[in-house]
Amino acid sequence: MTPAPPAPSAAPGVLTPSGDLTAAGDLTAPSDLTALADRLRRVLGEDSVLTAPAARYGGDYAVKSAPGTQFLVALPRDVEEVQATLRLAQETGTPVVPRGAGSGLSGGATPMDGAIVLGLERLTRIREIDPRDEVAVVEAGVITADLSRALAPHGFFYAPDPASATLSTLGGNIATNAGGLRCAKYGVTRESVLALEVVLADGTLLRTGHRSLKGVTGLDLTQLLIGSEGTLAVIVAATVQIRPLPVARRTLTARFPSTSAATEGVGAISLSPVRPAATELLDHGSLEDIDENTGAGLSAGDSALLLIELDGYGIEEQTRDLVTALRGAGGEVQVIGDETEAATLWELRRSGRGSGAGHARLGEDVAVPKSHLAEMFAELERLGRVHGIRTSAVAHAGDGNLHPSLSLPLPGQDASAALPAPLLAAADELVRTAVALGGTISGEHGIGTAKHDWLDLELSPASRTLQRGLKSVFDHRNLLNPGKAL
Amino acid sequence: MTPAPPAPSAAPGVLTPSGDLTAAGDLTAPSDLTALADRLRRVLGEDSVLTAPAARYGGDYAVKSAPGTQFLVALPRDVEEVQATLRLAQETGTPVVPRGAGSGLSGGATPMDGAIVLGLERLTRIREIDPRDEVAVVEAGVITADLSRALAPHGFFYAPDPASATLSTLGGNIATNAGGLRCAKYGVTRESVLALEVVLADGTLLRTGHRSLKGVTGLDLTQLLIGSEGTLAVIVAATVQIRPLPVARRTLTARFPSTSAATEGVGAISLSPVRPAATELLDHGSLEDIDENTGAGLSAGDSALLLIELDGYGIEEQTRDLVTALRGAGGEVQVIGDETEAATLWELRRSGRGSGAGHARLGEDVAVPKSHLAEMFAELERLGRVHGIRTSAVAHAGDGNLHPSLSLPLPGQDASAALPAPLLAAADELVRTAVALGGTISGEHGIGTAKHDWLDLELSPASRTLQRGLKSVFDHRNLLNPGKAL
Repeated sequence: MTPAPPAPSAAPGVLTPSGDLTAAGDLTAPSDLTALADRLRRVLGEDSVLTAPAARYGGDYAVKSAPGTQFLVALPRDVEEVQATLRLAQETGTPVVPRGAGSGLSGGATPMDGAIVLGLERLTRIREIDPRDEVAVVEAGVITADLSRALAPHGFFYAPDPASATLSTLGGNIATNAGGLRCAKYGVTRESVLALEVVLADGTLLRTGHRSLKGVTGLDLTQLLIGSEGTLAVIVAATVQIRPLPVARRTLTARFPSTSAATEGVGAISLSPVRPAATELLDHGSLEDIDENTGAGLSAGDSALLLIELDGYGIEEQTRDLVTALRGAGGEVQVIGDETEAATLWELRRSGRGSGAGHARLGEDVAVPKSHLAEMFAELERLGRVHGIRTSAVAHAGDGNLHPSLSLPLPGQDASAALPAPLLAAADELVRTAVALGGTISGEHGIGTAKHDWLDLELSPASRTLQRGLKSVFDHRNLLNPGKAL
Repeated sequence: MTPAPPAPSAAPGVLTPSGDLTAAGDLTAPSDLTALADRLRRVLGEDSVLTAPAARYGGDYAVKSAPGTQFLVALPRDVEEVQATLRLAQETGTPVVPRGAGSGLSGGATPMDGAIVLGLERLTRIREIDPRDEVAVVEAGVITADLSRALAPHGFFYAPDPASATLSTLGGNIATNAGGLRCAKYGVTRESVLALEVVLADGTLLRTGHRSLKGVTGLDLTQLLIGSEGTLAVIVAATVQIRPLPVARRTLTARFPSTSAATEGVGAISLSPVRPAATELLDHGSLEDIDENTGAGLSAGDSALLLIELDGYGIEEQTRDLVTALRGAGGEVQVIGDETEAATLWELRRSGRGSGAGHARLGEDVAVPKSHLAEMFAELERLGRVHGIRTSAVAHAGDGNLHPSLSLPLPGQDASAALPAPLLAAADELVRTAVALGGTISGEHGIGTAKHDWLDLELSPASRTLQRGLKSVFDHRNLLNPGKAL
């Protein structure tokens, strides 16, 4: 995931085009919520059920709570309490919205009227770290960065690195198959999950997967559950693969005269034998955004920047081959020898998400085959001209994953106002272009509600029919996060 | 997968404990096969339908054709013909058994009476190799090793390396989520598959997944289909991730005084920063097997051997750290400087699958968390004593995946005879021990028919109910490989 912008600047209304938030189950009317809360309290205890929940439970970093939305928040303390909550929901036909830290960017944790928001934030135990088996067993509410902190003394790390790592939970990461900066080398979250503990819609605890690195018994429910955005079951724990800390790291930058030239640099890396841990492309606009937000002075002319991290053995040989590839593509390469300077650059990258206060802003997430990155950046510039908006993009270029930022200066904008039409129109064209180039409507943020109406661009009717069928096998009353993802 | 033994030594009867091969669909009676063949010929052409098929279509490397089995073989030339075959099967209620090269070791491609064996062997096009996107698009019938051969001139390779790579097809590899020797570093087949083209039970062509390395739109049907052993759909093509050829490779051996000591060497690697491309553990018995089969002279006293391949950057640094780790665990390490000698060692490893002619032999495939490898080897020795059988094992030790070989000298054995009871009893105990140690009944060969009766050891009733439900969504008449895998 991209870095979550601070809450005040998270534009309301990214919900549009919106998903259908109506549950197909026996939707609990808001007037029944008091009775439901009483029953929940008898099971979970007084302080585990919120009837007047804090605003943050009303949405995530993409979608603010709709005014008047009525819902409960259940904060179970352990797996058994999650099971009890789901049993009660099943009995009463109440929709359930599983929630990690609410740092999602697609509205996946947004409640609907009459729902129970099932917060996993109290399931924070790291149950086990086993370097010999190369696994950790964690509960869903563990903050992603906390796991890596716990692993470091053992000489290990957890590879998936969503930019939200200091906020987001492992359960949320798994439910959205979170990506991040290190995926081209280490894979997305999916590639690090070996086994899951989930609670099914009827409260049954199900264990899937295996602790060994291999295992092929039956259909792979683990893999089906990863990325299912809480629509199939509630993830309560996971066995994840851990890896030894790299013996060395090195940061490099390569400046190119244009964004298009920088995409040639990305291609040159693909054709080289080196696979960086991270390859971030910052286009001209995003360098300007960073300068504006931080005064860093990174932008120069029309140039764009590749910010690259190498890691592992043979760091000198890797550097040599990478520099050769980048220079061959016309890049002006700088090896960052100073660790503090390198850290600063990565910090600046994280601040590169579009223009700040006083702007209406829409952040996007699409991916295309890497060879089409140049066309996506060109399309973004075109959309800026046509719609009279400001555009910029950073890309996890090694994955073909772009995070365009579309904005309009709009001083004094009401925080609850809908996004201006030009931003919505440009986003729509952008997503369609990604699909036309063989890409996807969501690289890593998920569908949630925010991208629901675009699903048919990418998925065939046969695919959607199958997906609805699979959902029905797990949750035939459609109580788990109804209206999301599928 | 482990190397497929030559067909004559593939023990018949590994089917026991057998799966139920009865189709739940409107099973075509053998007497209808002539009419069905006529209809198929009108669609596929005369030479694409075999009514008196070669014996090899009657089974795979684990399961020989049951006497009297009546089935057709359809050999479509392209995707449209696969669709036409499935439409006809659906119309006539005929079970369909998808088949790659028939090199499987669990009976997944074994036909049942009245079935159409759908051979994908003519779909052999490598449609596309795109180094910039780091993908290849291949048809299901492409032999796995042929893809790597085609990639080499581009400086790329396909990472999954089942030992059957020169025989098996990519479609079969994907259908079984094949493993092999390089998984601890590069992942199993699953980690290299980005997108699939499959034909559904009703003949519909479905495209799943994405060509970019990232993509999170909807439930991940690609991942659900991988490893589903032909029970959900027929895989006809795939987009796979390709990787740059490593800049260097190096083979090392480490001899330990006992198998148990060798597992300590595996643990030392886990705790080191090095991740070899392959870590094979050859126990004392398997070294004796190799000596017996080849006269290589690898066995010495009670010693066991780790055969290791490093690859990538910093090969000298990697070697240094690995040697330190192995010596610290008591290993006698030899770096193999000569490439021919290294190649010979890997070839000998491939010949290490138990005793040869004149033996009744049963090959197993289980996986356990790596830290329990020693217990599995000890259990194997115990089973040898208790059941009076010869045992040996090679292990993809980096994955915790063992391939024990159980055998009894049985000169003049009838090739169609059932396996001796002591082998079956020992295999049953072995599988149960693997599960008891937190492992799995199949590391990489799949369930097919051979392991069907052990499913309940590993999967809970809730899991099996869900799996049957998912199967039903794809194939509600149970015509696709009925009785297999699930």
